[in-house]
Amino acid sequence: MPGPDAAEAATRVAVRRAVADLDAGALVLVGCSGGADSVALAAAVAFVAPRSGLRAGAVVVDHGLQDGSAQVAADAAATCRALGLAPVDVRRVEVGARGGPEAAARAARTTALERAAREHGAVAVLLAHTLDDQAEQVLLALARGSGARSLAGIPAARGVYRRPFLGLRRSVTEAACRARGLTWWDDPTNGRPAAGAAASAAVTSATVLPLRSRVRADVLPVLEDVLGPGVPEALARSAAQLADDADLLDGLTAEVLERASRAATGAAPADGARPVVLDVEVLAAAHRALRTRALRRAAVAAGAPRGALAAAHVDSVDALVTRWRGQGPAHLPGPVLASRECGTLVLRAGPTPTHTPDPL
Amino acid sequence: MPGPDAAEAATRVAVRRAVADLDAGALVLVGCSGGADSVALAAAVAFVAPRSGLRAGAVVVDHGLQDGSAQVAADAAATCRALGLAPVDVRRVEVGARGGPEAAARAARTTALERAAREHGAVAVLLAHTLDDQAEQVLLALARGSGARSLAGIPAARGVYRRPFLGLRRSVTEAACRARGLTWWDDPTNGRPAAGAAASAAVTSATVLPLRSRVRADVLPVLEDVLGPGVPEALARSAAQLADDADLLDGLTAEVLERASRAATGAAPADGARPVVLDVEVLAAAHRALRTRALRRAAVAAGAPRGALAAAHVDSVDALVTRWRGQGPAHLPGPVLASRECGTLVLRAGPTPTHTPDPL
Repeated sequence: MPGPDAAEAATRVAVRRAVADLDAGALVLVGCSGGADSVALAAAVAFVAPRSGLRAGAVVVDHGLQDGSAQVAADAAATCRALGLAPVDVRRVEVGARGGPEAAARAARTTALERAAREHGAVAVLLAHTLDDQAEQVLLALARGSGARSLAGIPAARGVYRRPFLGLRRSVTEAACRARGLTWWDDPTNGRPAAGAAASAAVTSATVLPLRSRVRADVLPVLEDVLGPGVPEALARSAAQLADDADLLDGLTAEVLERASRAATGAAPADGARPVVLDVEVLAAAHRALRTRALRRAAVAAGAPRGALAAAHVDSVDALVTRWRGQGPAHLPGPVLASRECGTLVLRAGPTPTHTPDPL
Repeated sequence: MPGPDAAEAATRVAVRRAVADLDAGALVLVGCSGGADSVALAAAVAFVAPRSGLRAGAVVVDHGLQDGSAQVAADAAATCRALGLAPVDVRRVEVGARGGPEAAARAARTTALERAAREHGAVAVLLAHTLDDQAEQVLLALARGSGARSLAGIPAARGVYRRPFLGLRRSVTEAACRARGLTWWDDPTNGRPAAGAAASAAVTSATVLPLRSRVRADVLPVLEDVLGPGVPEALARSAAQLADDADLLDGLTAEVLERASRAATGAAPADGARPVVLDVEVLAAAHRALRTRALRRAAVAAGAPRGALAAAHVDSVDALVTRWRGQGPAHLPGPVLASRECGTLVLRAGPTPTHTPDPL
């Protein structure tokens, strides 16, 4: 682990690289929760931005989910202001229930951050996800049996978001905070607090920890113990390689869909056009890695909920393309029906089932 | 978990699928260690082969690494003969030291199995790797920070080998053995013996277990505890998807290398030709996912040992292609030197270094 000065320098180098392409005078916003990662990010951005000709502010999202969350948010905002960031904007959000508590909190946070970026005219929102977050994300994706895109984890840059710290260990952000004498807030739902962190009043309990926190507290330490130190770095390296692969494969998949749609209907697939009609010959000629991606995307475009589509569903549609022997339509979640019709594959929203569809 | 009869049926269905394409009268050999997986495979093959018009024998490799290994091999051979397999061939091998004990044992086993297949005129060697082996393999690859090919794990079919049980849990093979009243041998270096297995005299010790066995004994149970049951199945699903991806990406990489070589030298890259000369423009125009694969393959063709090539090495060669600012050659293990020369990238075996090359 680098010493305090080296840790602070590492956070600054990471931020400098992440904002190197931005125009002088542009505003960037730090998404700050008050945790060690985002306090270290706020400090590094406050140092780097004026030296790079940029303006830098912060957004603190108060999810209102825990007692005292308003105070945590106010403290984080005060830290950001003391570091010289401006504007510093605290946004209280209402977290719904859709998709479970973690997904609902993420959705509310995303909406608030993007609205703040628009309203302040910011060109980028910087988030403090670290290499440890990336490793946890890869393990969670593996546990779902996901493909390259999910295993690629958290993107370093997508849309308005940039994540300068994806290559830094969490311990480095904590060391950087200590180097500056900055205190931080330990979210009790994050698992065991790090040594040296400001004490948290809440008592953690394994049974109420979210899955990600249990991966952090229970899985990664065992992996490092058995497989040796450097497992989080290795997971992040795998993720980076798979991100490259997924970018290429997604691009090639779009080409297959474009050709299959054009051959069947004479036009490119329109976004949200239903039913989706694709040429079977074009699909069958595509490599399996691209065909299964194309079929998954077509099913989603036809109305199947992404999260409910299992590999077995996609395989049943693939059978209509590559193992055609006159079988009936494939039943997908939604419900969406996929059927083979005169050399085309047609995916359309099905009737609301009067009985439970066949399990696939 | 399926009952004994269902378990036995599952092993037979898996074998039937794996040999469906073989010509009548062909000979297949089961690689049998005497463990539950390969005894269940021997039993399933002995049942399926005559009903599929095939002949079936077995090869038992005695690694000579543990006391009593000759007896274990003789017992396994007796089991195979009792099941009706013929020929049953026991091969004692000398395990060297190269690459560590596990790699050396694997190399010796592979040589013996392939020689046996040639000598007996077998068209396929069936191996009993299970879904659990696959999950362990994926975790080991992750711990190394590997790309899609390594994460794709153990191939279902490659060369003379076929692995009918890659979709079955280890517990199913044990249940299938019990259903037939077959006993098996528990390798003490495999970790904790399964309940109900024939007792093993050896006492296991965590400190001497190979890495794979520690993954089995310590890592997977924690993953299942935290992430829920079905983690091995999820890891295997990820591996299968990544295997498709890796097949496509490897094929596209070969095309890039072919074009880059032809543009630089007027000819396709000859296997083992040194130095390797590639056109920089062709490489730079390729997607990063393909370029890094192409550069890695070129470095190996020029003499760099595959296992010693780290991502940082490949990145230093990539810098010569995409971030060229007149820098000197990249030093790779081997040693191999990569340098940019007049619009080409040249990788050649370097002089034996008189000093330690720069760390990369």
